[in-house]
Amino acid sequence: MGMRIGYGFDSHAFKAGVPLVIGGLPIEHPEGLAGHSDGDVLLHAITDALLGAVSAGDIGTFFPPSDPRWKGADSRVFLKTALEEVAVAGYKIVNVDTVLVMSKPKIVPIAGDMRERVAELLGVKPGDVGIKAKTPEGLNQDGVAVAHATVLLES
Amino acid sequence: MGMRIGYGFDSHAFKAGVPLVIGGLPIEHPEGLAGHSDGDVLLHAITDALLGAVSAGDIGTFFPPSDPRWKGADSRVFLKTALEEVAVAGYKIVNVDTVLVMSKPKIVPIAGDMRERVAELLGVKPGDVGIKAKTPEGLNQDGVAVAHATVLLES
Amino acid sequence: MGMRIGYGFDSHAFKAGVPLVIGGLPIEHPEGLAGHSDGDVLLHAITDALLGAVSAGDIGTFFPPSDPRWKGADSRVFLKTALEEVAVAGYKIVNVDTVLVMSKPKIVPIAGDMRERVAELLGVKPGDVGIKAKTPEGLNQDGVAVAHATVLLES
Ligand SMILES: [Mg+2]
Ligand SMILES: [Mg+2]
Ligand SMILES: [Mg+2]
Repeated sequence: MGMRIGYGFDSHAFKAGVPLVIGGLPIEHPEGLAGHSDGDVLLHAITDALLGAVSAGDIGTFFPPSDPRWKGADSRVFLKTALEEVAVAGYKIVNVDTVLVMSKPKIVPIAGDMRERVAELLGVKPGDVGIKAKTPEGLNQDGVAVAHATVLLES
Repeated sequence: MGMRIGYGFDSHAFKAGVPLVIGGLPIEHPEGLAGHSDGDVLLHAITDALLGAVSAGDIGTFFPPSDPRWKGADSRVFLKTALEEVAVAGYKIVNVDTVLVMSKPKIVPIAGDMRERVAELLGVKPGDVGIKAKTPEGLNQDGVAVAHATVLLES
Repeated sequence: MGMRIGYGFDSHAFKAGVPLVIGGLPIEHPEGLAGHSDGDVLLHAITDALLGAVSAGDIGTFFPPSDPRWKGADSRVFLKTALEEVAVAGYKIVNVDTVLVMSKPKIVPIAGDMRERVAELLGVKPGDVGIKAKTPEGLNQDGVAVAHATVLLES
């Protein structure tokens, strides 16, 4: 049995009049996340953590932001590609842990739903996914959402 | 035997006239860390990494900042709760590695003491804890302390 | 068999008229990274992740920036020291995953070369190294390069 570790980071600025989707979960909020795709900062960080763990490049390798095909893209498509790369490399997910850093909306009340949604998209149990949140104390980042994700894989 | 990975992040702004405590270690410094609790940025990041590794929520789930009970709270209480969650889930700590990002005080001279303190609080050997520090070069974050923590657990 | 996890972070500001070296790879670019050493933000993050995984201090412990010996130093020297510490502790690298956060230059076109260079410096296969990149969307960090690195070791 072999194990592998991966780490992903992402950030997107908040923007009025755009739907907010984090971890594949639509969230009621006056602002969404700007980006070439749907701006799902959490799925992007997880996607990159999975790709990095099997040394398969990153989101930008597979889905260049310069390519109009990915304009407004559903980030679940990116995640699916990463899961295929993990499978092809002969690995499966042990667990995933994440942190969202954003001043609002509050994540605690929806963390359970988000965990279920992410677990479903990853094909793992909710108990194998960690969803955590922090406000960016002292960081002057109130208009942006940041996500960190770490994954452990086994063959 | 099963393994799990966790990652925690935290930040707190420096504030004059507050005692500075990092990793449970009181530090002589003209400023401390602002926060609802004692602002121990390192213990918060480790606590979240432990909770995330066993998918048990985050500090905010257990200790809402809106709850006056946790005003000025000793962060060792938060860590203790996370350690109980890890034990209940059937895991124990393999090792913990951390990075502090702050312009001052200098951490190198006190890193050994901090490592012993954190190890004691975690119930592991000092050699199973990594304490590292960086100044926030180019990041315009001189007035804030940031902590990253990663943990590896085994059942 | 035992396993260990490590995490490293680094940042350096861009500066005109300095050669740019990332992951040991010289890159054609009008600006390089400021720092006491050669400013190789990626090698610094990996070096710290390795040192942290075996609880051996950090770059600053071994190579104090106050020491004129390390002015303009080749960061491969730092990495070599970390690899020795890992070996002395009885561990070897399973895999390394990294993220570079910078607005430019574009990393995708050179990620393959960078991966080979880093793998060679670490003494592992390119398939055991992840090189990923993000632009700092919303973070107001266009003039700085940030690197995150995570490592998994086994004895
Ligand atoms: Mg993104
Ligand atoms: Mg905190
Ligand atoms: Mg550096």
